[in-house]
Amino acid sequence: MNNGIMIVLDGSNGAGKSTVIKAVKEYIESRQLEVVMTREPGGTPIGEKLRNIILSKEHPEMDDLTELMLFGAGRAQHLAEKIYPALESGKVVLSDRFDSATISFQHFARGIDRELVDKINNLALNGFSPTLTIILDLDPRIGLDRVRSRGEGLDRLEDQDLLFLDRARNGYLRQAEEFPNKFYVIDASQSLEKVISEAILAVEQLL
Amino acid sequence: MNNGIMIVLDGSNGAGKSTVIKAVKEYIESRQLEVVMTREPGGTPIGEKLRNIILSKEHPEMDDLTELMLFGAGRAQHLAEKIYPALESGKVVLSDRFDSATISFQHFARGIDRELVDKINNLALNGFSPTLTIILDLDPRIGLDRVRSRGEGLDRLEDQDLLFLDRARNGYLRQAEEFPNKFYVIDASQSLEKVISEAILAVEQLL
Repeated sequence: MNNGIMIVLDGSNGAGKSTVIKAVKEYIESRQLEVVMTREPGGTPIGEKLRNIILSKEHPEMDDLTELMLFGAGRAQHLAEKIYPALESGKVVLSDRFDSATISFQHFARGIDRELVDKINNLALNGFSPTLTIILDLDPRIGLDRVRSRGEGLDRLEDQDLLFLDRARNGYLRQAEEFPNKFYVIDASQSLEKVISEAILAVEQLL
Repeated sequence: MNNGIMIVLDGSNGAGKSTVIKAVKEYIESRQLEVVMTREPGGTPIGEKLRNIILSKEHPEMDDLTELMLFGAGRAQHLAEKIYPALESGKVVLSDRFDSATISFQHFARGIDRELVDKINNLALNGFSPTLTIILDLDPRIGLDRVRSRGEGLDRLEDQDLLFLDRARNGYLRQAEEFPNKFYVIDASQSLEKVISEAILAVEQLL
């Protein structure tokens, strides 16, 4: 019963998402399953172009509705071109962020009406939802310290004050409460080793 | 009572849209009104980037829903950044294409479900509609001949067979029947002089 599994890794910046995704990928492959790695925004050539527009600091004038529709457009393309075909051929899709991030950032952090966010999300998703979304939960103060110590920059959506990032974090936790069967929260203030083993445990139960 | 007028010029390729728009602009200015010229897709820096993605022949893989959402995103930005502020300051907005083109091309020509097209259009428009849409109606056989004789290329959405273009043309006429107060159809097989004078007559009645 490995047909049609999509796992999303999401959560605060600096929580170790990239490292955990790599470890999860290796684990799934060790179970003789083929993994398609992807990300949002992005994931397709059209989606990557939209990602550049969405995350670019050139566009502070971007309207909320525009931003939501660009996420929606990218997601519709991502599903049609990459995710559905992969799931249909029995592969496991592993995505760095997906719809949970739109709800956390656009609704909970930015304050855009939930009904509007859901409406556009649902148009793009057309009834689909990922099998499991793993949230790496971390106080943004710790996350930002980690990101800065790696010398990395922040994009337009990440470069916000701590209260904004607190609201985004809270948004992930609230979604996990709303949909307990679809979310798995890991305390990312633990050692990376511990975080990885919890993530693999969660994935193991799906396969 | 010149506050808040938006006029859209739309219709088949080769119908003389660019020339008619220029003439209408000059006429409105002769009435001591300020005109903001714009176009769709496009009209803003973000919108022009989306236009490049939508019309580029690089992306034959573009999903219908993606395309609709990109038109929606561009339109939301266009309204927020350019159209609403212009209308609020009493200017006349003159746009080369707008929502009527999405309904004609995506629904009537391409066959995408009208309900879905309307849903995404309506999200972007949020209750707004242009004051008047002038349709330059022309048999696409004549239009294509004119375009070719000018040595111009066609973009991804225009480069279709004649039956597709017939359906798009029919879509404009059907919209004009649906919303007779919002549409004005001009027979663009007439001389350009005649087409321009009819367009100016229609605009005169609005000012």
